[in-house]
Amino acid sequence: MRANYIEEIKTWTEEFKFHADVSVRFSETDMYGHLNNTKVFAYFEYARIEYFKSLNRMEKWTGPQGDTIPVVADLQCDFVKQVFFDEQLKIYVKANSIGKSSVDLHYMAKNERDVVVFTGRGAMVQIDRKTGKPVPWTKEEHQLFMENN
Amino acid sequence: MRANYIEEIKTWTEEFKFHADVSVRFSETDMYGHLNNTKVFAYFEYARIEYFKSLNRMEKWTGPQGDTIPVVADLQCDFVKQVFFDEQLKIYVKANSIGKSSVDLHYMAKNERDVVVFTGRGAMVQIDRKTGKPVPWTKEEHQLFMENN
Amino acid sequence: MRANYIEEIKTWTEEFKFHADVSVRFSETDMYGHLNNTKVFAYFEYARIEYFKSLNRMEKWTGPQGDTIPVVADLQCDFVKQVFFDEQLKIYVKANSIGKSSVDLHYMAKNERDVVVFTGRGAMVQIDRKTGKPVPWTKEEHQLFMENN
Amino acid sequence: MRANYIEEIKTWTEEFKFHADVSVRFSETDMYGHLNNTKVFAYFEYARIEYFKSLNRMEKWTGPQGDTIPVVADLQCDFVKQVFFDEQLKIYVKANSIGKSSVDLHYMAKNERDVVVFTGRGAMVQIDRKTGKPVPWTKEEHQLFMENN
Repeated sequence: MRANYIEEIKTWTEEFKFHADVSVRFSETDMYGHLNNTKVFAYFEYARIEYFKSLNRMEKWTGPQGDTIPVVADLQCDFVKQVFFDEQLKIYVKANSIGKSSVDLHYMAKNERDVVVFTGRGAMVQIDRKTGKPVPWTKEEHQLFMENN
Repeated sequence: MRANYIEEIKTWTEEFKFHADVSVRFSETDMYGHLNNTKVFAYFEYARIEYFKSLNRMEKWTGPQGDTIPVVADLQCDFVKQVFFDEQLKIYVKANSIGKSSVDLHYMAKNERDVVVFTGRGAMVQIDRKTGKPVPWTKEEHQLFMENN
Repeated sequence: MRANYIEEIKTWTEEFKFHADVSVRFSETDMYGHLNNTKVFAYFEYARIEYFKSLNRMEKWTGPQGDTIPVVADLQCDFVKQVFFDEQLKIYVKANSIGKSSVDLHYMAKNERDVVVFTGRGAMVQIDRKTGKPVPWTKEEHQLFMENN
Repeated sequence: MRANYIEEIKTWTEEFKFHADVSVRFSETDMYGHLNNTKVFAYFEYARIEYFKSLNRMEKWTGPQGDTIPVVADLQCDFVKQVFFDEQLKIYVKANSIGKSSVDLHYMAKNERDVVVFTGRGAMVQIDRKTGKPVPWTKEEHQLFMENN
């Protein structure tokens, strides 16, 4: 596996605790017969949001009173194995490193045979909805990400 | 063709004037090798918006000062011929009938050989963004739809 | 509710037995803040496939040895209530009527408060993968749909 | 701009020759009001295919007689500026480097004011459809990519 964001594969894999379940929809396949590669990023988004919900961090970004929103700074995915229609995937998420107002999330997708089918990462920044400027995490949030890496 | 919203096929077909061009993306195909049926509604949406833009009606619904938004009340599509990757489609739109605050839009998709590949329709209602109540068309709008059916 | 495929709403509603669970993804919302109307058809597709799987009918259409495939003849949806990000929907499916080689599937989506948010229907035809001609249901399949309407 | 695949921004930008036009669809926005970040990869796919078509390389991968298919090995995107509904984007593509049976494609998206809104890259490998093994480019193909970087 050549993904440059994985320092040491064994440790990297074992650090994941949280996952969200995704089932590959028919409409997400393409004429080559497998999961279209553009669709995995919607899985990452879904898993990331479930992860934030598990930390009770999502509500503040979607509620009507929210002043801040999370913005995706970058995204990447390395495709390891073909994925097919109706496969049940586990999309693992962890906070790999934490900045002042950003967090680097890593992803690992496994199929039902516990085989890694794709991996990925992406940085997110918390910004002020009006000014667009980065808003630092609170101490509590920093702590939360550290404990749930 | 059995679509019940088409009274007389020749007249119905000839009434269309406006169309938007769409090219079938690879990511819109599925493992059966053709355009996935769920994707045509995004084509309808795109064509409908281009139609409204051609009438200078879209800006008031997407601009920051907009008080009203258009809401889709229903949608339907009848699939006539298989559509494949990279086909260049013309998506025709017309206002088939106009209500006080609604409009019944009809759609016809033709491929490069000028063959109808699918047809459809859907009612849209203009509502107040805050109250959710229907907002009647102005006389000018009524006129516009009548002339651009 | 004005959907013309619903003869009598109480009976129609009560006849549904099967449902699939869907959670509204962030990437399925649009800039008006709710579920984009084009996305419900992917929910219908997912629920329909889960329904066929529950009847052990799906495998013959996706396996490598499959000679027949199901083709969507038409689709429609009536939007009853706004649906928002992260709502957990139940997508009910039933075989409302059965033809020689087709089946008319009806759909009903309910939110967590058991309120109907949209309804729909669509005919499917079983065709021969090579000739494209309709392939009649077996007696057993006919029976299955009848019992699981 | 921090994307690590861009060695020197001025040269990198100037090397692009080919581009495909994309218009941001309403159904591709999300409730935060801008282009949903998962959608850019469908733009990359579309632009990449148009690029291959311009080199007459696409037909061999989608025609019925095709023995090889291109497989996406990895994908990444760096988001530079917010993108909104109805923006007309130019998605530039170039072959940044060429391997024996792979090619590293780079992407740059510009809006109507000629401002870079996102960049990206991704490796593609040509494989044998049946065995799944990499199939080397012909000399002619190698040449083509070199000339159209």
